Amino acid sequence: MKNYFVSLVLFFVSSGMLCLAQTNQSAIIEDFKSSTKNQPGQEYPMVNSQGYARFRVIAPEAQNVVVSLGLGGTRGGTPLSKAEDGSWMGTTSGPMDEGFHYYHVTIDGGVFNDPGTLNYYGSTRWESGIEIPAHDQDFYALKDVPHGNVVQVLFPSPSTNTSRRAFVYTPPGYDKDQSKRYPVLYLQHGWGEDETAWSNQGHANLIMDNMIAAGKIKPFIIVMTYGMTNEVRMGGMSSFKIEPFETVLIKELIPYIDANFRTLSDMTNRAMAGLSMGAMETRTITLRNPDVFSYYALLSGGTYTLDDIKDKSKVKLVFMSSGSKERPDGVINAAKALKDAGFNAVSYVSEGTAHEFQTWRRSLYELAPLLFK
Amino acid sequence: MKNYFVSLVLFFVSSGMLCLAQTNQSAIIEDFKSSTKNQPGQEYPMVNSQGYARFRVIAPEAQNVVVSLGLGGTRGGTPLSKAEDGSWMGTTSGPMDEGFHYYHVTIDGGVFNDPGTLNYYGSTRWESGIEIPAHDQDFYALKDVPHGNVVQVLFPSPSTNTSRRAFVYTPPGYDKDQSKRYPVLYLQHGWGEDETAWSNQGHANLIMDNMIAAGKIKPFIIVMTYGMTNEVRMGGMSSFKIEPFETVLIKELIPYIDANFRTLSDMTNRAMAGLSMGAMETRTITLRNPDVFSYYALLSGGTYTLDDIKDKSKVKLVFMSSGSKERPDGVINAAKALKDAGFNAVSYVSEGTAHEFQTWRRSLYELAPLLFK
Repeated sequence: MKNYFVSLVLFFVSSGMLCLAQTNQSAIIEDFKSSTKNQPGQEYPMVNSQGYARFRVIAPEAQNVVVSLGLGGTRGGTPLSKAEDGSWMGTTSGPMDEGFHYYHVTIDGGVFNDPGTLNYYGSTRWESGIEIPAHDQDFYALKDVPHGNVVQVLFPSPSTNTSRRAFVYTPPGYDKDQSKRYPVLYLQHGWGEDETAWSNQGHANLIMDNMIAAGKIKPFIIVMTYGMTNEVRMGGMSSFKIEPFETVLIKELIPYIDANFRTLSDMTNRAMAGLSMGAMETRTITLRNPDVFSYYALLSGGTYTLDDIKDKSKVKLVFMSSGSKERPDGVINAAKALKDAGFNAVSYVSEGTAHEFQTWRRSLYELAPLLFK
Repeated sequence: MKNYFVSLVLFFVSSGMLCLAQTNQSAIIEDFKSSTKNQPGQEYPMVNSQGYARFRVIAPEAQNVVVSLGLGGTRGGTPLSKAEDGSWMGTTSGPMDEGFHYYHVTIDGGVFNDPGTLNYYGSTRWESGIEIPAHDQDFYALKDVPHGNVVQVLFPSPSTNTSRRAFVYTPPGYDKDQSKRYPVLYLQHGWGEDETAWSNQGHANLIMDNMIAAGKIKPFIIVMTYGMTNEVRMGGMSSFKIEPFETVLIKELIPYIDANFRTLSDMTNRAMAGLSMGAMETRTITLRNPDVFSYYALLSGGTYTLDDIKDKSKVKLVFMSSGSKERPDGVINAAKALKDAGFNAVSYVSEGTAHEFQTWRRSLYELAPLLFK
């Protein structure tokens, strides 16, 4: 590490960046490590213990290279400076929020991914991703515990005239004890994401593995599918209609899962949750189908009110969450009102995070022990 | 389509590319369609019925944009020309081979992926991919037939001190009939690829679904895992040693699969196959473990000779394949020699393809009906 620091200082001197390092970034601790979301063998981007990110992109003849990430995580951007070896380097002007962030690199006016990172589907495209180590990262770490599977299924969808894809998390031991049946959580992604998000960005499978190994929850199945019909995939929210997805979920996917996996298929063993747009879908679909789900969860996307829910006896849990950097008062007040009226209503606020996946990883971690009681 | 053609002509005129279009590309049929490997909603890259590919990359201030693909599929490159709208466009100088090709885009000396395409792990990095429609593409098409699952498992690997990932194809109906057990094919990727290759690039799951639906094969399980220990992931073949992977496969993965999936676990119901480096691994591991596998298949990677195989009675099939643009005589002659000596040996040559995935898709299609007889 010491040699690395020396060579970094030499790099700044030789590239004329020392001034920048001294003025803006003098308090940066030089303990940068490769982001855990990098491609195999790739050193950059790197992150330090304070949450700064440092980028390095090779483009010797480029005129202008800017990383879309800036202070906090998503605001502003970080211009990179050209070094003598043809690489472009730069460090965020401040620490970023803990957790996962999407980003891209603008090279001479064109938008590309950072070749150093793995890609994640967000903003209706596969983007670069970076992970800022969180103080609580242990709960979604890959550990030496029994692991469940993530099963890609292609289910028939007559209403959209396609085979549609879903991912099904089955808990450890699912394939061994052939007599056991499990409750099911239907878990939706946000706008611009798809059915890969909760596993790839959210580590939902690892969160479940770790909680099951620690005895914190009873095992259940999670089903994740694409929450928009393909026709509006690229459209904005204004063109969104719930009916096509509602048909896919209620008439096609749920019967397929109940027929092909060992589920407990009554409504008291079925939950629906979603983040952002997925929360909007969850709210609408649970209310329109009061005999299908018993557990409702909205992650960073709206609230239920007393007027919404016709039959209190059919709702076993209302869970609403938000990052502290969103507007958490909404979910806190909504849960309080429901609780005062006799509902099992819970709010959760993720400290120090915004409308991003760290909020939703933590929300799943808080939600899971409350389900299927 | 007519309006599109008119606008393309106008584009060539306005951008000064008409000359190029007239001299080099006068025979190009203007029936370009988006590649099936594009990201959702992305028009470019496009391919035509002759196998030409046309690229469009946005980078208004770039000086130089080159696509790594050229004539045939992998040779040379295609320089793009700047249009007035800031985009860079270009068409390959000739048709490419049918099937899947990896590629990247060099922007001002830096290597990036084409933002229009999905990414595929090859050359030890996630690269852009393009699909040239093949005359026989029906056998790996997504059809309205019952679909099997692709199951991501994380299996414990004490020898590498990690949880390692494998993908397991389970045939349609696997989860319904809990009494049925299946033979297993262990199927390896090539150098620079990983355990995602056979599903993503190879469409192994769709090939199986279609053959099972057509009654051409009896259902079996396929297991795909990473064929190198992580330590040498980025190294060249010279640093490759078989023992670490052999331990993972024989001592860790096979027992895990037999314990967690409904397999037929005797050697007469176990096959091993691999492409390129995976064929080298298959050859070495099958010969070093003569009581583990009964069916051997080398796809574009070496041959078995009479001297290799000690006990003929333990080998139910030797399959060796090659693209016609590789050196197919090797597998033809090797199969003939083995057959003359009384082995069930088969060679297959994929017409018009090189060391690429179309050769291996077709090889799997030819191999599958010969397994587990």
